[in-house]
Parts: sequence; structure tokens; C-alpha cells
Amino acid sequence: MYYTFPLITLEMSGLRLVTLAALLCSLATADGGNVLVFPVEGSHWVNMKVLIQELHSRGHHITVIRPKTSMFIKAESLPYQTISLNTGNEFDANIMNFTTRMLQLRREFHTSTAAYFKAGKELMMMMHHAHKLVVDQMQEIFEDAKLMQLFQEAKYDVVLTDPCFGGGVLLAHRLGLPLVFNVRWTIMEDGHHTVAPSPLSYVPIPGLKSTDKMTFWQRVLNVLLALVVRNNHMTIKESYYTPFVHRHFGPDVHYDELVQAADVWLMRTDFTFEFPRPTMPNVVYMGGFQCKPSKPLPQHLEDFVQSSAEHGVIIMSLGTLVGTLPEDIAESVAATFAQLPQKVIWRHTGKRPSTLGNNTLLLDWLPQNDLLGHPKTRVFVAHGGTNGLQEAIYHGVPIVGLPLMFDQDDNLFRMRVRGVAKVLEIGTLNKDNFLEALKAVLYEPFYRENVQQLSRLHRDQPMKPLDRAMFWIEFVMRHKGAAHLRTNSYKMSWIQYHSIDVIALLLVSVMMMSLICILTVKCLWCKVFGGRKAKLD
Amino acid sequence: MYYTFPLITLEMSGLRLVTLAALLCSLATADGGNVLVFPVEGSHWVNMKVLIQELHSRGHHITVIRPKTSMFIKAESLPYQTISLNTGNEFDANIMNFTTRMLQLRREFHTSTAAYFKAGKELMMMMHHAHKLVVDQMQEIFEDAKLMQLFQEAKYDVVLTDPCFGGGVLLAHRLGLPLVFNVRWTIMEDGHHTVAPSPLSYVPIPGLKSTDKMTFWQRVLNVLLALVVRNNHMTIKESYYTPFVHRHFGPDVHYDELVQAADVWLMRTDFTFEFPRPTMPNVVYMGGFQCKPSKPLPQHLEDFVQSSAEHGVIIMSLGTLVGTLPEDIAESVAATFAQLPQKVIWRHTGKRPSTLGNNTLLLDWLPQNDLLGHPKTRVFVAHGGTNGLQEAIYHGVPIVGLPLMFDQDDNLFRMRVRGVAKVLEIGTLNKDNFLEALKAVLYEPFYRENVQQLSRLHRDQPMKPLDRAMFWIEFVMRHKGAAHLRTNSYKMSWIQYHSIDVIALLLVSVMMMSLICILTVKCLWCKVFGGRKAKLD
Repeated sequence: MYYTFPLITLEMSGLRLVTLAALLCSLATADGGNVLVFPVEGSHWVNMKVLIQELHSRGHHITVIRPKTSMFIKAESLPYQTISLNTGNEFDANIMNFTTRMLQLRREFHTSTAAYFKAGKELMMMMHHAHKLVVDQMQEIFEDAKLMQLFQEAKYDVVLTDPCFGGGVLLAHRLGLPLVFNVRWTIMEDGHHTVAPSPLSYVPIPGLKSTDKMTFWQRVLNVLLALVVRNNHMTIKESYYTPFVHRHFGPDVHYDELVQAADVWLMRTDFTFEFPRPTMPNVVYMGGFQCKPSKPLPQHLEDFVQSSAEHGVIIMSLGTLVGTLPEDIAESVAATFAQLPQKVIWRHTGKRPSTLGNNTLLLDWLPQNDLLGHPKTRVFVAHGGTNGLQEAIYHGVPIVGLPLMFDQDDNLFRMRVRGVAKVLEIGTLNKDNFLEALKAVLYEPFYRENVQQLSRLHRDQPMKPLDRAMFWIEFVMRHKGAAHLRTNSYKMSWIQYHSIDVIALLLVSVMMMSLICILTVKCLWCKVFGGRKAKLD
Repeated sequence: MYYTFPLITLEMSGLRLVTLAALLCSLATADGGNVLVFPVEGSHWVNMKVLIQELHSRGHHITVIRPKTSMFIKAESLPYQTISLNTGNEFDANIMNFTTRMLQLRREFHTSTAAYFKAGKELMMMMHHAHKLVVDQMQEIFEDAKLMQLFQEAKYDVVLTDPCFGGGVLLAHRLGLPLVFNVRWTIMEDGHHTVAPSPLSYVPIPGLKSTDKMTFWQRVLNVLLALVVRNNHMTIKESYYTPFVHRHFGPDVHYDELVQAADVWLMRTDFTFEFPRPTMPNVVYMGGFQCKPSKPLPQHLEDFVQSSAEHGVIIMSLGTLVGTLPEDIAESVAATFAQLPQKVIWRHTGKRPSTLGNNTLLLDWLPQNDLLGHPKTRVFVAHGGTNGLQEAIYHGVPIVGLPLMFDQDDNLFRMRVRGVAKVLEIGTLNKDNFLEALKAVLYEPFYRENVQQLSRLHRDQPMKPLDRAMFWIEFVMRHKGAAHLRTNSYKMSWIQYHSIDVIALLLVSVMMMSLICILTVKCLWCKVFGGRKAKLD
């Protein structure tokens, strides 16, 4: 039951474009739910799109809010209607500039601590800019009475958003709608830290590159890192969200509470990826929800893959944001591939390396899932984004990792300690160590056996992660929330939550009682022995 | 595919009886898994039996360890083989005596605080006795070389046990087998307290009769109650399990660690029953797993139920252990029922009350699930055991509660705050307040609407609780455990777990640095102004 949307667009409120379907939304909800989506661009959009497509195939009507010139979120290509905003258009440029700068700085990590801190500063600058843009978008929406009226009339059943940025959270609160998260991060923190107890003694902060079994000094570093992350999280929250929340919802409303009020958290991990840690009843793990059995390849690709004979194929892709590597690195990579008997399919949008071998095929875009699921695929050379790694786990393909930015180091660290990946640093990458890593993962059974065991564990679930995600989104629509799964403990103060007031009272009580006992004994002692002493004197 | 077991029994090791099937077990595992069950008697057995029957219907082979004269766990009536022990036979008598004493003491609760504390003492005495019996059973098993060899040869895939008593935990560790819990309690504590963080600020200790939203004084009481429960738990653990563990596994092994090493915790609640609280990846909620659509009633019962016409039927049962109420209370109950236009089906094994009306049918046993699922059923008069309450939620029948012992007060409190039950105290029960409670639940739509909403929430799950339980038991059998879902944090000391060592280090560091700063400033001050002062002098 597919629903086709009229693509006639209306000009409203100056330059804003609203597809006609948005206006018809309230009329079109007879067969399905009505879902308002506030997504995040880039790789986050890649996985949000999977949820949207599945929701649409189940008969739900989708409205996506996007910046008018978004590179990733297209207005016409998918079965959803869009509301295009005038603000937030610099989001893509901001993140692409950051990516370029990070690639430069990353190369200096092994020689310069300054580069490391500079990268941290760049990340914070980019995040500040991005969050400012999101709050600008919300300002635009909240101040546009016609648009707000349109939202009200459309009678949405749920807001689906990625709380890495807070737009959807603010909008859901304003519209009084149930809220479902497609989540891994809330601003700067792992979503778990916002929703579930996360003892720092065995829950490593992303960035520490540690397992859940830490030495004393790792635990010290983990606490310090948690303080830094919390500080960054708070800085952004206080700079952009808190003023907005106070202006629009009053001084007693706190942004964190709006986040914690979400009905269901669809977490983009599972425990073949994540270390075991506490969770909450309204957290649903959907790691690998985007994975599916591979489809046949286009004929020319299939011919290329088959030509690898018994040697098999290497797939290389560095994610949504990075199509091009610096030229010298690209040359080293190409030269290394040229030495191997395998065939290589490499997503590379830059200049064709001069050392490229006949065995290597460059593509602007590759059907990653279908290639990873191909029986001839031997190794996945990846940057360590969650999407790609989940696909590698699903299809049981071992990894050579080249982390570039964000959580990629930490994701690849998780793969390395599970014995399914070799990880290299792009600053020290050369033909020798790249070849060594590739040969290890190609020829040592250790990596393939481990990833296939991980794949068996990942696939052995009572239902598919995407079906589970759909069930819970639809559950929230059916029941107008999931209050019975959500703790209200976030409304307590820090002192109440940790029972510090109670412990203080009990300690004071014990001390008072001890004091009374001591004084009584002392008093009796004085009466009995004091008198005797006086007599003796 | 049902498997019938030869019922010839062998006499081994003196009086122990082992069915022949146990010896044949290792030969019989071709089509299914091999499950060793160490159950708990009474109502705990009622729900363990549901899991066993389902496992058997899926082709698994079940061996149940039981005391030879068990009242509940029969050797012949079900499709499992049994290993009958000489020890532990006083278990049933111990619990039945306790039940009788509790019924007497309970009547005095409203007038006597002493009775309340006496009941607590009786509970502890009963628990001490019961845990001693379980450890005696383990002693018998561990010291019987032939039986241990038989266990080894049977090649079990998993131990399924209720960790309310520790027999199965000890046996699984000795045999090196994966461990699955059918759980609500671990000795005296809610299982959650053993496996997941349970902040006392919003997780009420059973017995407090509080929701997850507590006042300051409720939180104080909750912490005090937690200390009492922990103390009781530790007393029993140290009295029976710790000496046994040290004797058999060495001084470095701790009983709590063996419990926390369980692969999967099948929790006999869900969040229509329990308040939201932190959980762990290896905790699986199967509340209501025993519930199923009602089957048609036997003709005489159906005729009786239909004769109620538009008034409908009241069902009364006080659980597995309590068939008979004290005579005067039974008279009040019977007289109240006689005043109503409804028909009543009452599980009552005692003397027939003289005031019994024509509308009331007494039965020794009643098909509770089929009656609760009957469209004519209006009210369930229940003692508040988890099994019965889950059935009431499943079928959407409001409750009049008469709590008698154990967790029943707390269970019924949960139903009361959800607006699906009126709760009475047996010591103050009379015709007037019983009639009032019945009439409220019969005629005020509030209770029925709430319980039906709760029923809708409970039934709206991605898969049936029993199927989920089966999936995870079979998962543990397939993968020989579920290590990737289980945190090893329980191996940390209390100080490490709560990062107290790290916090201490950081505090000392900050203090040292402050001290150095102060001393430096002081030193400089002295140098600069001390010198000037000297000159001035």
C-alpha cells in the first residue's frame, strides 16, 4: 500500500517551501499513522532513511523537516513529504569543512599532541555552529504561526528524531506529541548516559578506547574524560538549548528533562557491538537494523567480483562524508592494493592514483550492503562508522580500519578487541603496514572466524532489529506514548537521585545517637566515679 | 513430538530414586536440548512447570531434581524425568506450617505491632530452615559420586533454576554448565537488586508499599528497609551458602558471584506490573508467560457461569498454599457473597460455611485461567500472588485483594495504585467492607476500564512472553551461554564498582594541588611583604 505524494510545492512565509501533501496530511491518515521526522544530516540521515522507508511501506505518512538546500535530505527522491526551512542551510558546508580539516589534523596525531587538541577544538567549533543552526531552525518554526498551525492540524501521532541535535525534542514538546529517538548520541554524550545509570567503573566513555574491564588508571582516565565530555555537553546545552527552552517554555523547564521524557529510545547498537551495560525498559536495541540479505550485483560488478576467482574481493569505503583521501595516502593505498592477487572495489571520488593496479576498480558510489554480503568478499577496509561496522558484523566480513574522526576510533577499537579488525592510523599509514594488515586479515583464520561468530550472535535474535524498531514506533503511536516504560526519576535533583539527603540524615542521626550515648556514659561516669574521687580526695 | 518416559525407577545410593530415563538421557538428546531443572516448590513450581511443558513440547529433554516425597513436584504426572533426593522432604511441611502460623498472625496486624514483628521472625525462621534443606540436598548430590557421574554423562546443555533457593546455582557451577534463571527473588532480595543498578531513590524495596515516586520520608524508610533486607539476605547466605561454597569451590569463590554469573535472567514480571527501573542486557521480562487464551469450561461449570445472566461471576482463590480460611472469616466471606446477585466460584477446601448462599459454588480446585478469561467474569478475589495477578492483567479482570504473606501486599499495592484493585486486610475483613469493596469493583467502571487498559498494554508485545523465554533458553543452549550480554562488573569490589578509589585519588590530588598553590602564594607573600616589613621595621 504505497502512497504517492503530490510534488506541487507551495510558497509560504517568504521562501519556505511546503509540499502540498503536508497540507493534506490530516486527510490522509485514515490507513496509517502520521509521523513527523526531524532528522540529522550525513550518515545519520542514511539510517533515518531506512526507518522512514520501512514506516512508509507499512502505510504510515511521513513528513520530514529539512534545510532547503540540504545535500543529503532530498525533497523529491523518497516517499515522504518535506517541510523545507530557510535556516540551517550551512549545516552541510560546516560538516564538510570540518571533515577536510580533520583529515589534515589527523595526519599529525602521531607526531603532535597539539594537533590532537586542535582537532578537539575544531570538533567543538563545528558542534557549536551546528547546534546554533538547529536552534535557528527551531526559532524559524516556532515563530511562524502558519507553520505551527499546519503542524497542529496535521495531527501527528509521533515525532521521530535523532537527539544528537535537539530540534525534534523541542518540537515534540511544543506540539505535545509522543517522542521516539533513533539514537546513539545526545549532543556530545552516548545516549545511555542520558537515559540509564552508567557506572564509570565499567562503562568506558567513548574516546577512552577501553573495554568494560579497566585498570585503576583507565578508570581514573575514564572519570576525567567523563568530566570533559559532560562539560562539552553542558556548554552546548547552556549556549543554545537552555536559552531557547527558557524563552519558549518558561524558566522551570530544562532541556535535559525534555530529552529524558522521550517515550522510546531506539538505540543504534547491540551487544555484539557495545559492551554490556545497564539499560532501561524504554531502550530498544536495533543495532544492525539497516542490514539485509545482499541483492544480486549489477552485471558489470558481478563480472568483476567473479574475476577474482579463489582470491576474493576487498571492499574499501570511508563513509558518507569522505570520498577522497589526501593524494599521497591514496597513492600508498592504491600501490598496496596493486600488490595483492585479490580484486578491489574502492569508493574513491578524488583524482585517480597513478599507482592504481589493474585489480582495483574505483567507484563514486558502491552498493555496500550487497558487496559485503557477496560470498567472494574477504575484507572490508572501513573508516569505522557504526553503519558500516554493523553491516560487516551482519555479513561476517573482517575489517581493516582507518579511523578518521568522531566515534570511529572507539567503534574500531570495539572491533579490534573482539578480534575482528586490524586498525591503522592514517598519519602513519604506508605500503608496508597497510599490506601487513590486509594480509593478516585476509589469511589468518582468526579474524574471519571471530567475525563469523559475532555475526551468528548478532543474527540470532527473536525478531529482526528493523521489525523491533517498527513495533515500538507503532506501539507509541497506538498508545500515545509509553509512560509505563519510562522512569520519572529524571525529575529528581542530583542529591535526591543519589539519596545523598537520606544518607546525610542517617549519618547525622547515627552521630547524634553516638554523641548522646557518649555524653550519657560520661555523665554517669562522672556521677559514679566523680563522687567516689571526691570522697577519696 | 512428545516423548514418553519409562517410569521404571532404579534404587541407587540407598533410598534415592532415579528414573531410568535419566540414565538414558545422554542417548536421547539427538533431537533436542538437555535441560537440568532445579525448581522451588509451591507456587514457584506452578510457573516452572509451564516452562518445562513448553520446553518439552519443543523437543527438549527435561530432568527435574526433587525431594522424594514432594507434594507438588510429582514424579509421574508430567513429561520429565526426575531425580528424587532423600533430603529436603521437610520443605513442604515447613512452608505449610508457616502458612498456617502466618494466617493467625496476620489477623492481629491491625491491633498488634508485635504480631507484625513476630511474622517477620517466623518468615526468617522458615527461610533459614528451607535454605538449610536446600544446602543439605546439594550436600547429598555433591557427595554422591555415582549421581555426579550420571550428571556428567547426561551432557546437559543448561541448568534452569529459580534462584530464590541456591541449589541450581551451585549445581551449575559444579557441572560447568550455562545457567538460566526463572526468577523474581534471589534469597530475600528482588532479583533486580542482584543483577542491575537499583537506585533506592526511585526503586521501592518490596515491603515498603510505595511507588517509584517517593517522598523524602519514604526514601528514608526505603533505605532502612533495604538495609534490613540486605542483612537478612546476607545472614542466610553466610549461614548456609558461603560455608558450602568455600568447602566445595575454595575460599576465593563467593556465592553472590555464582548467582551473578547466570547467563540469562527470565524475570517473572513486566512493566505493566513493575515500576520502571534499570535493567541489564541479559534480563528478559516474561511476566504473564503462563497466561493463555481461556479454553471452554467443563459443562457443569459453564452452566453455572451462564446461570449468572447479566450479573456475571466472581472468582475467588487464595493461591496454591491457602485452601482454607479461618472459620469466622470464611463465614463472613460466604455471607457477603450470598447478598450479591452474581454467581461465585470459590476455591475452598475447608469446612462448608453455614452462611453459604445458593449463588456460591465451592471447589477444591478451579481452572483459574479459563475462568478469568470467561466473558462473564466480573471480579477476581485474590491473595495477590504474582501468577494470579498476571492472569488477571492478561484477561483484564479487576481485583479485590486479600494479601496474606510474602510479596502479596506489595503485589496488590501495585495493582491498587494502577486503579485495578481494592485491597482489604484479613484482620479487619467483615461483611460490610468486603461487600463495599466487591460492589465498587463490580459497579464502578474505573476498575474495569483501568485493568482493560493494562491488559491492552500487557498484550501489546512484539512476541509472547513464553516464546521470548523459550527463545532465550534455547539461545543459551545454542551458544553455550550468553557472555556478550553479561557484565563482569560483579567481579569488582564495592569500592571499585562505585569508583570510590578514583574519587578519593582525585580529591586528594585536588587538595594537594590547592595546598601547593596556597603554600607557594604564602611563601611568595612572605618573601615580598616579609622583606618589605623587615625593611619598614
